[in-house]
Amino acid sequence: MMYYFDNAATTVQKPACVADAVSKALTSGLYGNPSRAAHGYSLRSYREVEQAKDLVRRLFHAGDDYGVAFTHNSTLALNLVLKGLIRPGAHVLTTMWEHNAVLRPLYQLEKEGVTIDYVRADAGTARLHYEDLEQKLRPETQLVVCNHASNVTGNVLDLTRVKEFCRRHGLLLVLDVSQSAGVIPIDLSDGSVTAVCFTGHKSLYGPGGTGGICIRRDAPAVPVVTGGDGVHPFEHEQPGGVPAIFEAGTANVSGIMGLAAGIAYSLSHEQDLKKRQNALSEQFLAGLRQVPGLTVYGDFTGPRVPVFAINFAGAESATVSDILWNTYEMATRPGFHCAPLVHRALGTTDIGAVRFSFSSFTTAGDIDAALKALHEIAAL
Amino acid sequence: MMYYFDNAATTVQKPACVADAVSKALTSGLYGNPSRAAHGYSLRSYREVEQAKDLVRRLFHAGDDYGVAFTHNSTLALNLVLKGLIRPGAHVLTTMWEHNAVLRPLYQLEKEGVTIDYVRADAGTARLHYEDLEQKLRPETQLVVCNHASNVTGNVLDLTRVKEFCRRHGLLLVLDVSQSAGVIPIDLSDGSVTAVCFTGHKSLYGPGGTGGICIRRDAPAVPVVTGGDGVHPFEHEQPGGVPAIFEAGTANVSGIMGLAAGIAYSLSHEQDLKKRQNALSEQFLAGLRQVPGLTVYGDFTGPRVPVFAINFAGAESATVSDILWNTYEMATRPGFHCAPLVHRALGTTDIGAVRFSFSSFTTAGDIDAALKALHEIAAL
Repeated sequence: MMYYFDNAATTVQKPACVADAVSKALTSGLYGNPSRAAHGYSLRSYREVEQAKDLVRRLFHAGDDYGVAFTHNSTLALNLVLKGLIRPGAHVLTTMWEHNAVLRPLYQLEKEGVTIDYVRADAGTARLHYEDLEQKLRPETQLVVCNHASNVTGNVLDLTRVKEFCRRHGLLLVLDVSQSAGVIPIDLSDGSVTAVCFTGHKSLYGPGGTGGICIRRDAPAVPVVTGGDGVHPFEHEQPGGVPAIFEAGTANVSGIMGLAAGIAYSLSHEQDLKKRQNALSEQFLAGLRQVPGLTVYGDFTGPRVPVFAINFAGAESATVSDILWNTYEMATRPGFHCAPLVHRALGTTDIGAVRFSFSSFTTAGDIDAALKALHEIAAL
Repeated sequence: MMYYFDNAATTVQKPACVADAVSKALTSGLYGNPSRAAHGYSLRSYREVEQAKDLVRRLFHAGDDYGVAFTHNSTLALNLVLKGLIRPGAHVLTTMWEHNAVLRPLYQLEKEGVTIDYVRADAGTARLHYEDLEQKLRPETQLVVCNHASNVTGNVLDLTRVKEFCRRHGLLLVLDVSQSAGVIPIDLSDGSVTAVCFTGHKSLYGPGGTGGICIRRDAPAVPVVTGGDGVHPFEHEQPGGVPAIFEAGTANVSGIMGLAAGIAYSLSHEQDLKKRQNALSEQFLAGLRQVPGLTVYGDFTGPRVPVFAINFAGAESATVSDILWNTYEMATRPGFHCAPLVHRALGTTDIGAVRFSFSSFTTAGDIDAALKALHEIAAL
């Protein structure tokens, strides 16, 4: 029997409604290119996309002051939002929790004169030093971008504190919710978050090729990727304002229909899914504490997503993950999880860490099996 | 009965194998995130993506000197390639056939000091003045980007002539094959095309959210959209060279599996599909010639894709398309088709044009019905 514990990379098991929605789009012969004509095939797709956007707004408790743009993945969403919002010469505050989907766009902007400071993460726990926000603030600070939940430790950002800081200083706030959307509540109703960038294929259970941006319509963004919009062909600038400027080219209609089904599933099972994932996390953590010679990284005092980074003393994470796959058919992800700075904080830049991550399709039996395997590896 | 004549926007009818492949990915629970770990779920997806890339290379007769990157759509592909290849201060040659997916990225580059000249299109036929290539060439000319087949007139570029020009002057050559891939042969075997940018959801019959780049591995490109690559987390620059630098973030595995099925279908029925589409085009064109008061735009002396732009003298194209939809349930696309300059050449910037576009699922009976409807409209 195979076990899939790499849900922070993508969920492989989806609710049946997701494939059904995608199939409907691809087999009915009825779904055209949305926003490209006024015939029924096109309008049918347009309505599906708009309904999906309404679901995204519902998921994030976003009011009419927010709009939604669908993108290929959260990497593209983050590139569009960061490069679209950050002004030349600006100062940006971010954290050591960030994924390369945030860091690499920032490194590109750095070459154009943007400066960046990082909220440090504590050694071992990777707890963020939020006081760095105030200490590293500058007159030219324009924007704060934060990972809402670490894809390495599973820890969740103190969003209340970051929101308050941004509000006090009039800063734009962008959140990478790739690991948190669908797992922990995200509430944009107070308007203090400028934009969230999400992925569709993780805990929203959508297909690949989906993700997007939920952004304040008054966000001062310029277009990054440009092309056809189907409506204003003679304008040289990408037209339509925020969020339309983020959607150049043809939408992934079948994917968006699948994502909408995934979000609807997630919304209608919200409490259950969360309870279930919390129970799995508690069960796993309690078990990990019993495994000899094993380190669990992170902070276990606050809210979390079901992601765990562990190591056996001195063992390469890749070796442990290989044993887990080859001996137990358990899929985990070793290495650095595209999040170099958090590994620097954890002191794991040499061996990486073995990441276990669960979805609502993981079972208590799966967790037992994982713990049993870890005990056996500890005894090797 | 409804008729779909907007295949240049997207094909709504797909071969059954496409939905089957997507469903397999979404229902089996076996397809992980490719290139993100060494477990079986991840490797299974990796192999599927690699096989799809091999199919793309076969489709374009591309040797080992070419690599493939999958993107969200051809708009993103063109943005990545044009912004990745064109140097600051360079001069670019393009044509009046271009779609906004080429024009708008070029307009953005113009603001950064890139200069652009256009190969003119003739009034009425939109035939390109290829002599402009030589006449507008400058010492700082770096790159030529051309629409391989006009999404308005259906005319096909004289690629031999453009290739020869680029070879003679050592210029990079980028082709937008959104309308031609899967319809007319594209042969990269002589190595003279730097890159083709394709879409998956048109004549390759893939799902939305697919498209990509087939590019010479030695193309001097820099990364545009950046993020995780799963392999070199500590590097600030997007690593991996061409074409890996174009694939930051998670791939659309289910979409790519669908696209691979579409390309395989297209390759195995290649001659049939082309014959069929040529026959439909001939039937339609012969019929159009009989409709009183109707103008057909374009050049009918050379190779074509099954796309036709027409107008009734003085009638708004939107009005005609509305009648076609409301009275006959025939989906066509009026307006400007995101290709402003070709409409300038055709003299249709006021009323646009009604576009009919066919796929290999269009039937002779559909064409008869369309012609009958046009005759009735002509008599109004």
